[in-house]
Amino acid sequence: MKFTLHTTSSKYSARTGILETDHGNIKTPVFMPVGTVGAVKTMGPEELKNIDFKIILGNTYHLYLRPGTDIINKAGGLHKFISWDRPILTDSGGFQVFSLARLNKISNDGVEFQSHLDGSRHMLTPESSMEIQRKLGSDIIMAFDHCPSGDADQSTIKDSVERTTNWMKRCSEWLRENPKCYSHDQVLFPIIQGGIDLKLRKQSIEQLVEHSSCGISIGGLAVGEEKNAMMDTIEFCDTILPKDQPRYLMGVGRPSDLIKSVQRGVDMFDCVMPTRNGRNGHVFTSDGVINIRNEKYKDDHSPMDTQSSNSWGTTFSKSYVRHLFNISEVLGLRIASTLNLTFYNDLMIQIRENINNGSFDDWSDSTLVRMSKSKGM
Amino acid sequence: MKFTLHTTSSKYSARTGILETDHGNIKTPVFMPVGTVGAVKTMGPEELKNIDFKIILGNTYHLYLRPGTDIINKAGGLHKFISWDRPILTDSGGFQVFSLARLNKISNDGVEFQSHLDGSRHMLTPESSMEIQRKLGSDIIMAFDHCPSGDADQSTIKDSVERTTNWMKRCSEWLRENPKCYSHDQVLFPIIQGGIDLKLRKQSIEQLVEHSSCGISIGGLAVGEEKNAMMDTIEFCDTILPKDQPRYLMGVGRPSDLIKSVQRGVDMFDCVMPTRNGRNGHVFTSDGVINIRNEKYKDDHSPMDTQSSNSWGTTFSKSYVRHLFNISEVLGLRIASTLNLTFYNDLMIQIRENINNGSFDDWSDSTLVRMSKSKGM
Repeated sequence: MKFTLHTTSSKYSARTGILETDHGNIKTPVFMPVGTVGAVKTMGPEELKNIDFKIILGNTYHLYLRPGTDIINKAGGLHKFISWDRPILTDSGGFQVFSLARLNKISNDGVEFQSHLDGSRHMLTPESSMEIQRKLGSDIIMAFDHCPSGDADQSTIKDSVERTTNWMKRCSEWLRENPKCYSHDQVLFPIIQGGIDLKLRKQSIEQLVEHSSCGISIGGLAVGEEKNAMMDTIEFCDTILPKDQPRYLMGVGRPSDLIKSVQRGVDMFDCVMPTRNGRNGHVFTSDGVINIRNEKYKDDHSPMDTQSSNSWGTTFSKSYVRHLFNISEVLGLRIASTLNLTFYNDLMIQIRENINNGSFDDWSDSTLVRMSKSKGM
Repeated sequence: MKFTLHTTSSKYSARTGILETDHGNIKTPVFMPVGTVGAVKTMGPEELKNIDFKIILGNTYHLYLRPGTDIINKAGGLHKFISWDRPILTDSGGFQVFSLARLNKISNDGVEFQSHLDGSRHMLTPESSMEIQRKLGSDIIMAFDHCPSGDADQSTIKDSVERTTNWMKRCSEWLRENPKCYSHDQVLFPIIQGGIDLKLRKQSIEQLVEHSSCGISIGGLAVGEEKNAMMDTIEFCDTILPKDQPRYLMGVGRPSDLIKSVQRGVDMFDCVMPTRNGRNGHVFTSDGVINIRNEKYKDDHSPMDTQSSNSWGTTFSKSYVRHLFNISEVLGLRIASTLNLTFYNDLMIQIRENINNGSFDDWSDSTLVRMSKSKGM
């Protein structure tokens, strides 16, 4: 894998670049739809390609539990299993065993946890997370990290930084010592921790950068802390992270968060927001976020979003999509998810174009002012 | 609207023809997907076109309750509301007020019923059913009929035949005396009743044919009677129905039922089976019906159906689709519905080709033998 930096904006740290993988190239900054359990909810693979997504996410914790690593391995890897021939990034399971699993017990060895599905007991370690991700065959593997919650105390965060570094070494070692499953290249991103404590962030970056060659992830944010503290932390990380590697801000976020983070040098994003909010009837449109379940759309026969690059923005009226939600029809979930994912991808295209044209600094300022007037943006 | 008969098979009464409407031509025999409440469940309009469906169904009872006739009228009719520019046939609500609504009270005037959704009280009459269908703007309007259940006694069926004839006259009259809502042509099909009583069927046909100019529907079948009795009734109707009008057998059925009914001169079909069964994991494939939830497909990485004319038949493996059902992922419902609808349309294409080639008699016999070995076909 290779990352080439293209253009950097002047006032802000916004950058464009290209990430080359064996499954295709990715223009950055990029948004990656979340396909947690092997599907971006409601979406078929051609539809994601039609929106022009270049990379999607999968999740180690979820795929390990269902359908299980061996089934995916026998299918020839996750790309084949889910019929997606473009790049895939997999999260390590670290975040889920802390946030989702029941009764997790953490030790230096790894995390013992109970499945959120059936209560069955499992153990995830840096080594087993690597083994699973190897078998999944993702192009970008995440290190197994310790991600404390946003309200964790100082000593927990300090411990998590140390533990994450130790685990990172074991991840690298396991990948070095064990053979590949498939012919394509798989690279490892470390995940930096440290909460919103800048000293710990610095320590985490310094300890992890030596293990990082292809890219680095910023974890432990968007876990309940204040939005300003999150942005200050990203801004701080930007000053000390290597410039020649892509930075992936995990689990973020709203459209305005993406712009603010790009201003602070972030290159890669993922978030369930476009699909999850879509399924709840919250649709990101060029006129702001609308709740399509709202009574006021009952007789509104105007198109969903004439500015969307997706034809469904003009194909379907607000009245019809409201009706589909009202009758609990899957097509409604699909339309909202599709328009939201398109909105996110359109936004990334605009971001890249403005950086490349040298207009990002002004464009991002005025876009953020506009977005600040719309709840949910 | 115009129907032109093309080819008739020699041993059986199978026929091909073309039904011309202002929204496009329909080759018969044809299968019409059911879009009860303004959507063929899980499917977008382009996807239905991609399978090459030429006509879909809507339902007066359901659309009257949700979203309401006025909203659809303001949208410019059902075609515009649901973004479907090909022909639409609407059922009259007759079947639903008897089978679905709570506490229906029938009189010669019409049917008073309580909504199955909220218990609200409504009245549907031949006139109001016509008014709703006018406003919906369907290309083919169904007469408001009285459809007794399969276990109704002789006198109920006799009454229903008389009532259906009286109501048919009122339907014709209302349409004649009231102005069109839209520029396109809308035609009325009477619905013949009479259960499996051939004398009553004859009476119903004789009474209704004089009101029929464009096509005629066979109602009151597939409501719980024996399959053989149903086929005998269709065979009888075939002998006395006008040859120059298309015959629409309502609510039928399994793939083998379609072939048997085409042998007996039927031209048009609708059924929820491909979509409803699909959502339950029952997939019609060239190897028979499979229940994709079955444990045995867990590690079966073979494609869903290599013989399907839809690319999804080879895109997705049984193991993956089973996994999607296992995680309750909408994409699974979509794949099963799409493959089932494709199976039905592929079958109709084969039926038409064989009739046109003069090979239908033998082909249908051998196909029925093959299907009889597969449960659910």
